Amino acid sequence: MILNNELKIRRDIFNKALASYLIDGHPKTLYAAARHLPQGGGKRLRPCIAMLSCESVLGDVKKMLPFAISVEFIHNFTLIHDDIMDQSQLRRNLPAVHIKFGEPTAIMAGDLLFNKAFGILHDLRVNASLFRQVHYLFVKCVEAICQGQDLDMEFEKRKNVTEKEYLEMIQRKTAALFSLAAQGGVLLGGGTEKEIQMMSNYGESLGLAFQIWDDYLDISSNEETLGKDIGNDIRNGKKTIITVHSLNNAVGKDKDFLKNILGNKDATHDDIKKIFTIFNKMKSVEYAKDTAVKYSTKAKRALQTLKESDAKEVLKGLADFSINREK
Amino acid sequence: MILNNELKIRRDIFNKALASYLIDGHPKTLYAAARHLPQGGGKRLRPCIAMLSCESVLGDVKKMLPFAISVEFIHNFTLIHDDIMDQSQLRRNLPAVHIKFGEPTAIMAGDLLFNKAFGILHDLRVNASLFRQVHYLFVKCVEAICQGQDLDMEFEKRKNVTEKEYLEMIQRKTAALFSLAAQGGVLLGGGTEKEIQMMSNYGESLGLAFQIWDDYLDISSNEETLGKDIGNDIRNGKKTIITVHSLNNAVGKDKDFLKNILGNKDATHDDIKKIFTIFNKMKSVEYAKDTAVKYSTKAKRALQTLKESDAKEVLKGLADFSINREK
Repeated sequence: MILNNELKIRRDIFNKALASYLIDGHPKTLYAAARHLPQGGGKRLRPCIAMLSCESVLGDVKKMLPFAISVEFIHNFTLIHDDIMDQSQLRRNLPAVHIKFGEPTAIMAGDLLFNKAFGILHDLRVNASLFRQVHYLFVKCVEAICQGQDLDMEFEKRKNVTEKEYLEMIQRKTAALFSLAAQGGVLLGGGTEKEIQMMSNYGESLGLAFQIWDDYLDISSNEETLGKDIGNDIRNGKKTIITVHSLNNAVGKDKDFLKNILGNKDATHDDIKKIFTIFNKMKSVEYAKDTAVKYSTKAKRALQTLKESDAKEVLKGLADFSINREK
Repeated sequence: MILNNELKIRRDIFNKALASYLIDGHPKTLYAAARHLPQGGGKRLRPCIAMLSCESVLGDVKKMLPFAISVEFIHNFTLIHDDIMDQSQLRRNLPAVHIKFGEPTAIMAGDLLFNKAFGILHDLRVNASLFRQVHYLFVKCVEAICQGQDLDMEFEKRKNVTEKEYLEMIQRKTAALFSLAAQGGVLLGGGTEKEIQMMSNYGESLGLAFQIWDDYLDISSNEETLGKDIGNDIRNGKKTIITVHSLNNAVGKDKDFLKNILGNKDATHDDIKKIFTIFNKMKSVEYAKDTAVKYSTKAKRALQTLKESDAKEVLKGLADFSINREK
């Protein structure tokens, strides 16, 4: 199995279905702003997970595509609003929505996409009771995402964050939507209670593995160059598994230095360099890698409940990919 | 019937039910920001309309309270985001959410309330099919509100707006939620198809009357003092039924002057004064009043389909109130 090919097959089906939902409307600019990210492409990981989960229980993927689109729209809505909050300039190598269309229209475009995500669920040809069940999963998931994003911002201002708190934050901010995608795919595909629960676990573990591996990549790919982004993350006090691990394990002068520099806008290039030395001394980068592997393994274990199928193999491949990718 | 007493009876029931929905959560600040407006009070017009509409078809108000709360949460979510977009400082004599909690948390608090509004619908003890129907009404309504708010902002930048365009904008931005409140109340109260349709019309006309009367009050209460707010609205190019009527009816130098001053940040106090002279010359203030009366009458006409009841009298009273109030 070549993972990229398998994902491309699903992505193509998804993108074709998505095209009919990137509708136009009045006022033109508002709809253009709402379309900006969804039509900008991307890996479509979450919809692919939903589709594969549905396939894995021999469900009809065509029937559940509106669900996959809803998941992607929720993802895009949160990106639009997050980019405003974080004052990010770029997203997927395109100008962020608020950069291109201005902040007021970007806030509104996010709201519109969020609303569309709920609206599209009405295109699911399922009975009203299943509709209500699926909708409830979305409501719970979006609440978690809001909590996660707010915690992420709050952590930037804090001097210390425990690993448990950090994991809870990314569970909400990132893993909850992965979990919804996997769980919903199986639910709409007609899976059993047990399969639904296990795939919810799969999605959650996979999401955690992806996020933690991102933390690892951010540091390891910047270690030599100490690029601008990573320096700014440190100056902004952004918490990752690595900073959290170092903060909680360093002692004495190292700990004082970390507390003093993380979140310090005036940190110099040398300060950042020294932070990296402490990360290495504490083996925090290694720890991040190990933790990502742990969650990837947990994700694969959750798959054991599924019968053998091509889709199951791809889902397994995704769990491997989450901790092998270089970007 | 004393309107204020009748509204207070419903408002008290509503506020009591609302209290149990103003839940706490983690992170504390996010939930405090989301509670800020709903717990700040206000007239609760929209929930009262929903409750009265339900009563008018002998429905069980207690059963539909989650719907009324959803409507109020949608209203509050849009206020939070609108205040960010319009850079308003105050709301109901309290600091706006983004002033008190900062813009990032305010964006998130709006998203959370929006999501809660949909979540609360799950507390309606109705069959899944009715749930889906009510849910769909909300989706359609929120899309209209987004369009309306975006049009409102777009109009500020335009030199001319037709009356038809203006009415379409306030129909979406304001009247759609009034319409949803009235329609949903009857739907959940077990009204007939015809009653549902007529009450949707009632809510829409009432919403238009309220908004246009607001336009009228803004001008007439500021005519002598030419207060700061109204001057700034003119300098920002804000469109109201009055500016739109004047723009479309003035000719020659008056029209040129209007086009030049509406939306002109550097307009002087004398310019604003002259604008008011043109409004009067064109009888635009009178026209606003007449138009509000027209929609109030239309709202009352829509009530004719209902059987006689106390609730019907209160709804009639609301239509009168919409064009008699002084603030």
